[in-house]
Amino acid sequence: MEQIFSELKFRTNGEGFIEITNDLNLFIQKNNFYSGIFNLTLLHTSASLTINENADPNVLRDLVKYMQSIVPNDSYLSLSKNKEEIYYKHYQEGADDMPAHIKTSLTNTTLSLSFQKSKLILGTWQAIYLWEHRFNQKERTLNVHIIGEKLPNIYNKN
Amino acid sequence: MEQIFSELKFRTNGEGFIEITNDLNLFIQKNNFYSGIFNLTLLHTSASLTINENADPNVLRDLVKYMQSIVPNDSYLSLSKNKEEIYYKHYQEGADDMPAHIKTSLTNTTLSLSFQKSKLILGTWQAIYLWEHRFNQKERTLNVHIIGEKLPNIYNKN
Amino acid sequence: MEQIFSELKFRTNGEGFIEITNDLNLFIQKNNFYSGIFNLTLLHTSASLTINENADPNVLRDLVKYMQSIVPNDSYLSLSKNKEEIYYKHYQEGADDMPAHIKTSLTNTTLSLSFQKSKLILGTWQAIYLWEHRFNQKERTLNVHIIGEKLPNIYNKN
Repeated sequence: MEQIFSELKFRTNGEGFIEITNDLNLFIQKNNFYSGIFNLTLLHTSASLTINENADPNVLRDLVKYMQSIVPNDSYLSLSKNKEEIYYKHYQEGADDMPAHIKTSLTNTTLSLSFQKSKLILGTWQAIYLWEHRFNQKERTLNVHIIGEKLPNIYNKN
Repeated sequence: MEQIFSELKFRTNGEGFIEITNDLNLFIQKNNFYSGIFNLTLLHTSASLTINENADPNVLRDLVKYMQSIVPNDSYLSLSKNKEEIYYKHYQEGADDMPAHIKTSLTNTTLSLSFQKSKLILGTWQAIYLWEHRFNQKERTLNVHIIGEKLPNIYNKN
Repeated sequence: MEQIFSELKFRTNGEGFIEITNDLNLFIQKNNFYSGIFNLTLLHTSASLTINENADPNVLRDLVKYMQSIVPNDSYLSLSKNKEEIYYKHYQEGADDMPAHIKTSLTNTTLSLSFQKSKLILGTWQAIYLWEHRFNQKERTLNVHIIGEKLPNIYNKN
């Protein structure tokens, strides 16, 4: 059993999804791993990792719209009990600042995936996405870490 | 340290929970593993894995009702800011189609669990559930993957 | 590759956050691990583990307020479709009982983290929190499990 650690960089385009499945599979293959655990840690508090449908782009569009509907950007919350309006106290970086932290806490910044035959184990309709919650373009850093078994040397190209 | 990969199949009964804790413990024991990491990947985008209370069935009933209250099946969302109604664009498989993807994104499709003495490490009141979000019966496939140490040979029955 | 299992205890102070990053790093260092996977399992169904901002305490305050706004303590839910009010059926331990289970299901009770150079891999602004959802003080038990490589003996103090 061997380990490897590295970082991958992704440029996002405002609130929405960047598919990263292929980048992850390439990382496995480039490093000659055959099977094991692939741990992802997104090093940010205003973007997430999520697994969802890879076929109809309207799923991704509807996910963003849904999140906007339950996490308002207008910097106040209506408490259900007494309808008191409470304002976000953390808003210094703009209207998308605190909403992005909330959306992050409702999803995940880490994933522990399995891979076999040098490929992530996923269902036919599943893909892995970096989910940007801020309005602006950002460069995001993903820590990647594998514990697993390498291909027998006979198959190694390195 | 050794690895094993396999798949378990579960039949669901519409929106709600199937407890899978025993199936997972049996898989560990049948394969003579003693301690390690147990990675679960549910190969679907409209069902989840979750850990919650195993005692009062009303907890599970209330969880489903709560999810229905924040993720409407009636194919529109009320945006909090301007009360504009926006309809789901992904609804081709029915009223539970997009809501199931949303409920999946608010929970998890993967879990990385720990086990020791051939048993998952869980609190007294915790159980692991497959959470079906679709209305109809479905056959769901769970990929199971262990990295860990096996029982010493003297205890092995195989 | 070696394993270690243990438990850490934390006392919480009602609904809110306890930062546990340093406790986790100390556990890695005390046990002379250098790199690997650090699996956390919180052995409860009314508290969570989450990664979020470590700088402005208003982020944590706003996260609690937000969760209170979408998970009411007053033991009923307004279904969006027909405005029917449905009461929690699980309320025996008080107004914070079922809401705590719901908040747990919207976040995580397990995390699979990576560490290198005897330190958790996290972004500059990230910290790991135990998120208490009950009103009262509680003692919470966190199972900690490492699979990884130890420091070479020359550096070991034990």
